[in-house]
Amino acid sequence: MDLQFAKGHGAKNDFVIFADEHDSLHLAPAQIARVCDRRSGIGADGTLRAVRGRHIPQWDGDPDIWFMDYHNSDGSLAEMCGNGLRVFVKYLLANGLATGPVVQVGTRAGLRHGEMLDDGRIAVWMGKVVLADAPQITVNAGERILAATKANVGNPHAVISLSGGGLAEIDLREPPTWSPREAFPDGVNIEFVERLTPGRVAMRVFERGSGETLACGTGIVAVAAFERRLSGLDQIIVECPGGTLEVRFAGDEGTLCGSAELVARGVFDLREDL
Amino acid sequence: MDLQFAKGHGAKNDFVIFADEHDSLHLAPAQIARVCDRRSGIGADGTLRAVRGRHIPQWDGDPDIWFMDYHNSDGSLAEMCGNGLRVFVKYLLANGLATGPVVQVGTRAGLRHGEMLDDGRIAVWMGKVVLADAPQITVNAGERILAATKANVGNPHAVISLSGGGLAEIDLREPPTWSPREAFPDGVNIEFVERLTPGRVAMRVFERGSGETLACGTGIVAVAAFERRLSGLDQIIVECPGGTLEVRFAGDEGTLCGSAELVARGVFDLREDL
Repeated sequence: MDLQFAKGHGAKNDFVIFADEHDSLHLAPAQIARVCDRRSGIGADGTLRAVRGRHIPQWDGDPDIWFMDYHNSDGSLAEMCGNGLRVFVKYLLANGLATGPVVQVGTRAGLRHGEMLDDGRIAVWMGKVVLADAPQITVNAGERILAATKANVGNPHAVISLSGGGLAEIDLREPPTWSPREAFPDGVNIEFVERLTPGRVAMRVFERGSGETLACGTGIVAVAAFERRLSGLDQIIVECPGGTLEVRFAGDEGTLCGSAELVARGVFDLREDL
Repeated sequence: MDLQFAKGHGAKNDFVIFADEHDSLHLAPAQIARVCDRRSGIGADGTLRAVRGRHIPQWDGDPDIWFMDYHNSDGSLAEMCGNGLRVFVKYLLANGLATGPVVQVGTRAGLRHGEMLDDGRIAVWMGKVVLADAPQITVNAGERILAATKANVGNPHAVISLSGGGLAEIDLREPPTWSPREAFPDGVNIEFVERLTPGRVAMRVFERGSGETLACGTGIVAVAAFERRLSGLDQIIVECPGGTLEVRFAGDEGTLCGSAELVARGVFDLREDL
């Protein structure tokens, strides 16, 4: 059996995307893992299946909506990913599956929407950001002991401002630890931030379960909320190793803007005997 | 501009392959690097361009031969790769560009040939193997000091037999060193071998310039030559992290046999602005 796919990325978070309007393509976790294998497959951080909402049992919204059925590269289910959502919206628009400018998308984290900006970037609404008033967490990373501020963007974050610079030198080969431990009982994504100019920062992120990654959509929004408080600006530029993104705030809600690229399309051989 | 490509792998050495019979596709190193980028491109260890020999200035053999124009993932030129050649032969046969059973291929290391075996595996002739009579090299890997035997399969190798087992525990996070240093002035590929049964071994390899890899065609042949001497057998099975291969000897020449898979085909967008 052949899988018609596209490959795309947002800030180098990369995905294999395919349309399955009528829910006829049920890939087993092992098949998804094979598709995502970077050597014996196509290679990706995960797969994004575009399926109508009516086919997703736990979806009780608009049955005609496109649902982003997102799986991790090991085949396990994933809830939401800001960069994945940007690539997903780009895919729907590029393939005439949605008209825009605003595209509604169902996800396991609820209803989201995105749109293509005039400059071709994709903006996606990331929901409400909650940022603690003061740094109340201590993080140990390599040799350094740093103060961190709690944030929540649907998932937990700890934002660390490196006032003296040194972002590149932070040692993230081993997972950072934090105290008090009970501040994040389910783990936390930890962002290290260096301020470049008011409204512009550079960051690195250590994602729970993944280690250091090139970018993290919710982490970027958490970092932007922190810089927004410092600068008073509503548009924050965030430079990640995977690319530069912008967060725009309206009230306590953030929108993540950046390029989303579809670089290839093709056919993958799903034969079991490979 | 669009690039029509296939993706394939041999022992998880993976390649983007494309046909360019009339030498009209001159990809710049930066374009090759973008194709091979595992996140913002398709992702591969390198590209294999199939072009007629007449278009390669340094090729003075049959002008109608298919030449394997091989580039590393950074866009630099590469000479030869046993796993790449197996995938290349599979690609020519699968796309009707060669008829077989034996397929002649031009490479920067000279004329090679390969064929599809009855069981679908691809066998490629790897040329002459030279194996030193005794272990005259000392290799330091992690905490261990080991005796190594020099071998040459067109490129230099040092083969280490782990008589007491412990293959999985060898620490290859840092490059091994060797003495006397002048034994390999241009560096060396180092193979660690554990004997399973007569004629069957498991190996790991540290490739100069690359670090530990999942398989190395010439390294497999060097290891097989070593086991051939021990066992007296002319067919040696070699288990690598990337897959299991077989080496068949005739005189002092080895043929590398194993599966070569084409897993996807598609179109890559070569636009410069991505």
